[in-house]
Amino acid sequence: MRKPWNYFRKYAPLLQWSGDYNVDKAISDLVAGITVGLTLIPQSLAYASLAGLEPQYGLYSSLCGGLIYLVFGSIAELSIAPTALLSLLTYSYTKDLTFGNVQGAILLCFLSGCIELLCGIFHLGFLVDFVSTPVVAAFTSAGAITIATSQVKNLFGLKFQSEQFLDTWKNFFIHIREVKMLDTILGLSCCIILLSMRKLKDYGTPPLANTDKKENYPTLRKIVWFVSVARNAIIVIGCAALAFILDKYGENPFSLTTKIPSGWPNVSLPAFKIEQENKTLTFIDMTTELGTGIIVIPFIAIIANVGIAKAFAKGNVLDASQEMIAVGLCNIVGSMFGSYPVNASFSRAAVGGASGVRTPLAGIYTAAMVFLAFTLLTPYFSFIPKPTLSAVIICAVIFMVEVMITKQIWTINRLDLIPFVVTLISCLILGIEMGILIGILVDILKLLYVTARPKVLVEKIPIEKEKYIKVTPTSSILFPSAEHVREKIISHNLELGQNCTTIVIDCQRVNKMDFTSAKCVGDLVKDLTTSGKNVVFMSLKDRLVTTLKKVYDGKIVLVKSETELKEYLYSGQQQPISNTLSNISNVQENGEHQSSTTQL
Amino acid sequence: MRKPWNYFRKYAPLLQWSGDYNVDKAISDLVAGITVGLTLIPQSLAYASLAGLEPQYGLYSSLCGGLIYLVFGSIAELSIAPTALLSLLTYSYTKDLTFGNVQGAILLCFLSGCIELLCGIFHLGFLVDFVSTPVVAAFTSAGAITIATSQVKNLFGLKFQSEQFLDTWKNFFIHIREVKMLDTILGLSCCIILLSMRKLKDYGTPPLANTDKKENYPTLRKIVWFVSVARNAIIVIGCAALAFILDKYGENPFSLTTKIPSGWPNVSLPAFKIEQENKTLTFIDMTTELGTGIIVIPFIAIIANVGIAKAFAKGNVLDASQEMIAVGLCNIVGSMFGSYPVNASFSRAAVGGASGVRTPLAGIYTAAMVFLAFTLLTPYFSFIPKPTLSAVIICAVIFMVEVMITKQIWTINRLDLIPFVVTLISCLILGIEMGILIGILVDILKLLYVTARPKVLVEKIPIEKEKYIKVTPTSSILFPSAEHVREKIISHNLELGQNCTTIVIDCQRVNKMDFTSAKCVGDLVKDLTTSGKNVVFMSLKDRLVTTLKKVYDGKIVLVKSETELKEYLYSGQQQPISNTLSNISNVQENGEHQSSTTQL
Repeated sequence: MRKPWNYFRKYAPLLQWSGDYNVDKAISDLVAGITVGLTLIPQSLAYASLAGLEPQYGLYSSLCGGLIYLVFGSIAELSIAPTALLSLLTYSYTKDLTFGNVQGAILLCFLSGCIELLCGIFHLGFLVDFVSTPVVAAFTSAGAITIATSQVKNLFGLKFQSEQFLDTWKNFFIHIREVKMLDTILGLSCCIILLSMRKLKDYGTPPLANTDKKENYPTLRKIVWFVSVARNAIIVIGCAALAFILDKYGENPFSLTTKIPSGWPNVSLPAFKIEQENKTLTFIDMTTELGTGIIVIPFIAIIANVGIAKAFAKGNVLDASQEMIAVGLCNIVGSMFGSYPVNASFSRAAVGGASGVRTPLAGIYTAAMVFLAFTLLTPYFSFIPKPTLSAVIICAVIFMVEVMITKQIWTINRLDLIPFVVTLISCLILGIEMGILIGILVDILKLLYVTARPKVLVEKIPIEKEKYIKVTPTSSILFPSAEHVREKIISHNLELGQNCTTIVIDCQRVNKMDFTSAKCVGDLVKDLTTSGKNVVFMSLKDRLVTTLKKVYDGKIVLVKSETELKEYLYSGQQQPISNTLSNISNVQENGEHQSSTTQL
Repeated sequence: MRKPWNYFRKYAPLLQWSGDYNVDKAISDLVAGITVGLTLIPQSLAYASLAGLEPQYGLYSSLCGGLIYLVFGSIAELSIAPTALLSLLTYSYTKDLTFGNVQGAILLCFLSGCIELLCGIFHLGFLVDFVSTPVVAAFTSAGAITIATSQVKNLFGLKFQSEQFLDTWKNFFIHIREVKMLDTILGLSCCIILLSMRKLKDYGTPPLANTDKKENYPTLRKIVWFVSVARNAIIVIGCAALAFILDKYGENPFSLTTKIPSGWPNVSLPAFKIEQENKTLTFIDMTTELGTGIIVIPFIAIIANVGIAKAFAKGNVLDASQEMIAVGLCNIVGSMFGSYPVNASFSRAAVGGASGVRTPLAGIYTAAMVFLAFTLLTPYFSFIPKPTLSAVIICAVIFMVEVMITKQIWTINRLDLIPFVVTLISCLILGIEMGILIGILVDILKLLYVTARPKVLVEKIPIEKEKYIKVTPTSSILFPSAEHVREKIISHNLELGQNCTTIVIDCQRVNKMDFTSAKCVGDLVKDLTTSGKNVVFMSLKDRLVTTLKKVYDGKIVLVKSETELKEYLYSGQQQPISNTLSNISNVQENGEHQSSTTQL
């Protein structure tokens, strides 16, 4: 039996890496943790508004992720907190709940966490293998486009209700005369500044990078890099300060964020039962209202999380189940602190990586910054202009639109553009949930087609007087392909087989047969033998020989290699074929496989 | 351009075989046609009642099948007429229609025919390849059990409403005290007589068989065979005569079939619009009411029809699309003569085959008998006792329960018992439609599992100083398996690779890579190369070499065979590996593939 300590070690990677923790690592983690915090705080305020929640929920959601992940997670770069895509999905699943979107988002966080945890414990992570890269790229892009679209109205100070991508743009142009000029100027300026500051990063160097001796102004470059990474924080603080000062002078030119209560979240389990004016909503009622969100949100969270973790696993085998357990626990514990569904984000992981993070312990410093933010800064949040938050969101998500991948797919495997395009369009028109489902379906249909219609190579080989047809199925014969293979062989026999008495089936690449295909191959052999042909199986695996004997009770001719085949064919010209048949098949039956010079 | 005549020949096989029609064939067809007619007429009366229709609809449905099929069909044995399974399904889809079950059944026949025709024209027959033999066996068996169950109450003269398998048996035992003794005696006697007469066939010989000279009583044996095959007709006529005579004496001891109008069906298109008391039902309304029946019935008809046709194709390639076109036309034309959905039946095909049928022209004689039956015999149909018809049905369907196949599946591929059992139970509890769907799903999940988790063979091969790890994926690497293969290789590298600097990936069985898997393999090579390993691809297909070069921009080492691999490994010890790398990959880039002594 394994000792309990080993279980702890297995499920809490902290215990594995904490042993050789040192000052060097601690400094790296501190710098990285603070840098990530500067990205995270403004993002989480913005994403909360995207999720239809007050900004403080963004901070509550950012608090626990890092603390739980540092114990159970294994990839240093990951920062578990609100993400654009999950915020969008949370909004779409909670906006119409009868028991309120806040309660709904928190319950959704708890339930998603439970599902993720269960998937981790029962090793169900393989399910995400069925979502191909083109489908992931497509739904991520569609999500980004939808999010950017949803923010355009705030950027221009417009007010209208609409959800869908097309509908939003239609409404945008209907209401275009109601644009608030000052909001627009602020919003667009923020976008331009953010994008320029992002570009600055190319001229900077990360704070802990080993700088080249010859490089000019190393410190300046580090500052430039830091400013670029902290751009969201800078722009949010700057705009809030501007609004605050204008407010002192009695001016309120911008649409501002609503006033919010300051201080701590309520620490409690999510509400599993809600008393409303005239009736009680049970757990079942609430779960039913959340509907498919309970599956879709953890599913997408797992895809994103495992995908990001793999990208940062640096050639190690990633324990995907452990990652799911970690994220599941982050959500479960988070829900007790008022969090909505959280996950790793690629942009934060990239910032963490570039800042030189060494261990998940960096999460402590990020969490500390978040804690400071909501204890000290909440009163000032109401001064953050809405267009600023929208600019932060837009400038974050537009880089999630994977334009480049289409070119890559085109050069590598054009056929994979079909699932990409289908998923992208379905996601934009029918919503992310439906889009992913359709994308997966298209992918599975493609797979089934490959399984159902394997290539079957057919050659007519003349060996002196004895010609033969050689048929090579290039993969296992399973029920959807059985008839196809049979028809190929029969039609080639009819076409080529006038003066060929032998059909050789090269089974080297056939690893498997199921009941349907075994029966089908049995019938084929029977039909061909009845019509006077010799059927020879070459390189048929022993296991499949046993199977074949059960479906066909005549003699089965087996050869192990090309050489043995030639021996059989030549001997066949000297003695009656029926004898040869029994000889060779006897060799097989006794298990005395002849070794052959050219082993195939 | 192909001449019109060739099109006719292609789509009307009659034109192909009619050229060499002769007296010999004509006699065979006459005998076989009449014999099949004797099986078909009583069956069609019985199946009509199973479909919830009056008996004459069974005859109407039997009229056109043979006549249309003789032009468009290619398998002589097939007789397109009512079948047990389609009757059951027709009943379940039409019993509750607001516009009447007769109109519904006829419309269903027309629409099923259209779908079958379209499937034939657009070559969609491959869809049935995704229904494995175990699933077909399971739903056929479940259908037979359900049908037999539904007839038990008539056999015992009971009257209660129930549809489901379990419900029917529950009701049977609740009402068991209401059993009508005379019905029961008649019903059970019919069953015993039918089964005994069926057994008689073993002692008879078909009418046109070449009888052995030494055989005793050849004529007697032929009569015995004929009596056995005509058992349904004999028992129905016998019982009806008994009821007729008893009626003359004023006795009516049995539950009889309802009185029905005699003569011709109305020849017209099915009703596409129905005026009811207070509203008009449009085509759309009617189609909506028929629901999934419009898909399920043709789907099952195609599975059954193609399956039976294949069984009788005698080693020829069956043109499944042509079969679908033929059956589709039978249904479309049939619907104009008051037919409900029709199809080939295995039992009739077996009778036809045993009777020595030579061409589909036999259908003419069968149709003539059906025509005689409904012009001359209809007044007497009302004397057929219900228990007799039930006995005919039960004795036909119990042989559709495929008990033996379970044993076969067990010996050939145990895993295939899962779809069998799941389908059987689902069909019995949730209905045929749901059952098939669940069965197909289970099968597809099994397939996807195989695609997602291919075997990857890993060997550590010591060659003098240069050890290497050889990894052999046993099938194509596609998106669901990409990560699995990558993880296998990485974990074996970590486990075995301490003093191996080379990892050989044998790609002989890898036919395909998609975008996801190509990227994944690219990342793998990058990660392994970064950690100081040489990655060698053996027998990688040229097409995949091109793909790989697009996802990995470093040097790719390619060898064509074991011999080339050894050359590479030995040379690698003498000169810096990076040189060898570029040499060998250059060989590939220039397309100058070295021929190797041992071609793999």
